[in-house]
Amino acid sequence: MRGMAGTENFNAAFLIIGNEILSGRTTEKNLPVLADLLGARGWRLAEARVVADVTADIGEAVNALRRRYALVFTSGGIGPTHDDITTESVAAALGLEVIEHPEAVAILSGFYRQRGLEFTAARQRMARTPRGATVIKSAFPGAPAYRIDNVIVCAGVPNIFQLMANAAVAQLPPGKISHALTLRVQAGESVFSDYLADVSAAHPQVQIGSYPREENNRYICQIVFNASDKQANAAARDDFCRYLQREKLPYEEL
Amino acid sequence: MRGMAGTENFNAAFLIIGNEILSGRTTEKNLPVLADLLGARGWRLAEARVVADVTADIGEAVNALRRRYALVFTSGGIGPTHDDITTESVAAALGLEVIEHPEAVAILSGFYRQRGLEFTAARQRMARTPRGATVIKSAFPGAPAYRIDNVIVCAGVPNIFQLMANAAVAQLPPGKISHALTLRVQAGESVFSDYLADVSAAHPQVQIGSYPREENNRYICQIVFNASDKQANAAARDDFCRYLQREKLPYEEL
Repeated sequence: MRGMAGTENFNAAFLIIGNEILSGRTTEKNLPVLADLLGARGWRLAEARVVADVTADIGEAVNALRRRYALVFTSGGIGPTHDDITTESVAAALGLEVIEHPEAVAILSGFYRQRGLEFTAARQRMARTPRGATVIKSAFPGAPAYRIDNVIVCAGVPNIFQLMANAAVAQLPPGKISHALTLRVQAGESVFSDYLADVSAAHPQVQIGSYPREENNRYICQIVFNASDKQANAAARDDFCRYLQREKLPYEEL
Repeated sequence: MRGMAGTENFNAAFLIIGNEILSGRTTEKNLPVLADLLGARGWRLAEARVVADVTADIGEAVNALRRRYALVFTSGGIGPTHDDITTESVAAALGLEVIEHPEAVAILSGFYRQRGLEFTAARQRMARTPRGATVIKSAFPGAPAYRIDNVIVCAGVPNIFQLMANAAVAQLPPGKISHALTLRVQAGESVFSDYLADVSAAHPQVQIGSYPREENNRYICQIVFNASDKQANAAARDDFCRYLQREKLPYEEL
C-alpha cells in the first residue's frame, strides 16, 4: 500500500459518502466504530469528511485524503441503485477503469444462488471494482469490500460496515497503541484551565483533552490523557490530580 | 458575507473540530441539527469535515471550505482550555489578528457577575475573536458565537451548538426550500434498481436516493424524492409507485 512501505505513518482518514447524511435524514454511526477498530490496532483516525453523491466531489476528496494519509476508508454508495457511484468515482479519481472483479462475482453469484435468486445485471453491478482491486472477505456474505491502492471501500449500512471494517483493519500492520486515562471533574473548565495548560506544557508526550458536558443541568468535564507511553500518561494525570486535591475540586477516575 | 452578494448559492459546509470525535470517544450530534436548521431555511449542507485540534489542519480546512461554499459553520474549540484553539486557527487562516471583542466581553462579564463569579483571565479567553467579527447573540447566556467573513464559529457542546446555530441560521437570507417525499419499500434494492434509475433519468429536477436498512433481520428500503418543485417531486414519486403496484411490491408512504 502506498505510503505504508515503512509503516512510518499510522494515520487513516474516513470518507463518508451520501446525501442522506448531509440532509440529516440518516445519523452517521460508522465513524466511532472505525475509530475504535483503528485505535485497537494502533492506528489513528486523523480526519473525516462527508461528501454528497457527486462523482467529482467524491474523487476530489479521495485524492486529497489518500495523498495525505496512509489509508482512506470510504463508506456508502456501493449498492445496486443509480445513486451508488462510489466505485466509478474512486476508479476515475485513480485513473483506473471499472471491471467486474472475478472474486466478487464468485461471492455474489454464490450468495444469490444459495438464496434461490437470480444473479441479475443490477446485482452484478455490486461485483464491480476499479481494475487491480483486492477483494476483502468479511463475515458479511453479500457484496464484498475491496482495497485499491491505499483506499478501502466499504458499504454504508452500519451492520455491514462494521463487518467490512473489522476485516479490513485486521489486515493492517499493527501500529502504536495509545493509552487513555480519563478523569471526571465536577467543575467548569474555566476553573482549572490555567493549571491544565501548565500540565499539558510539562508533559509534551501526552495529549490532554478537556471535554465539557451537561449532566443534570450543570456542566462537568472529562479530562482525557492520551499517550503511547503508559508511565508518561499516568505521570501527567497524577500531576493534575494533585492540583485537583489541593484545590478541593471533586473528581473521579473513569 | 463573501460569496453571498447575489445569494446565488445556498450551500454551506460544516467543519467539526475536535480530537474527541475522531477518537470515537464522543459521538457527533450536531450535524443533523445543523442540516435540519439549514434545510428549513432553504439552505443545503453540502459537505462536512472533522479535523483534529491542530491549528494548521483547522486553518487549511476553513480556507478550503470557505472558498468553495457560501458559508462555513464550525463547532468546537472555543472554550477556555489549552486545547481550545479554534479562534486563533480561524484568525490565522484569514490573516487576521485575535482581539478581545467588546460585545463578547460585555456578555461574558455580565454572565459571570450575575453568578457571583470572577471574570478571570481564563474566562476572558472566551471573549476573543478574529478582528472584525460580528458577535451572534443566541439564547445561550455564556460565551457567544460569532461570524467572521463567511465563517460562523459555534461551540461544540450539543445543547449550546443548537442555540447558536439556530440564531445564526435565522440571520441568513432565505434560500429555496427542498421538499422531500419518502416511500418505504419492502424489497431489496436490487429488485427495483433498474426501474428506479429510469425514473431518476426521466425526472432530472428530482433528486432520488435509495437507502437500504435492516429491520428485524431483513432489508427494507427508503426511497427519498427531493425537489424544490413540489409537483415535479410528486410526479416522480407517482411514477415509481405505479411500477411498485404493477410489480406487487409492498410499500407505504412515510
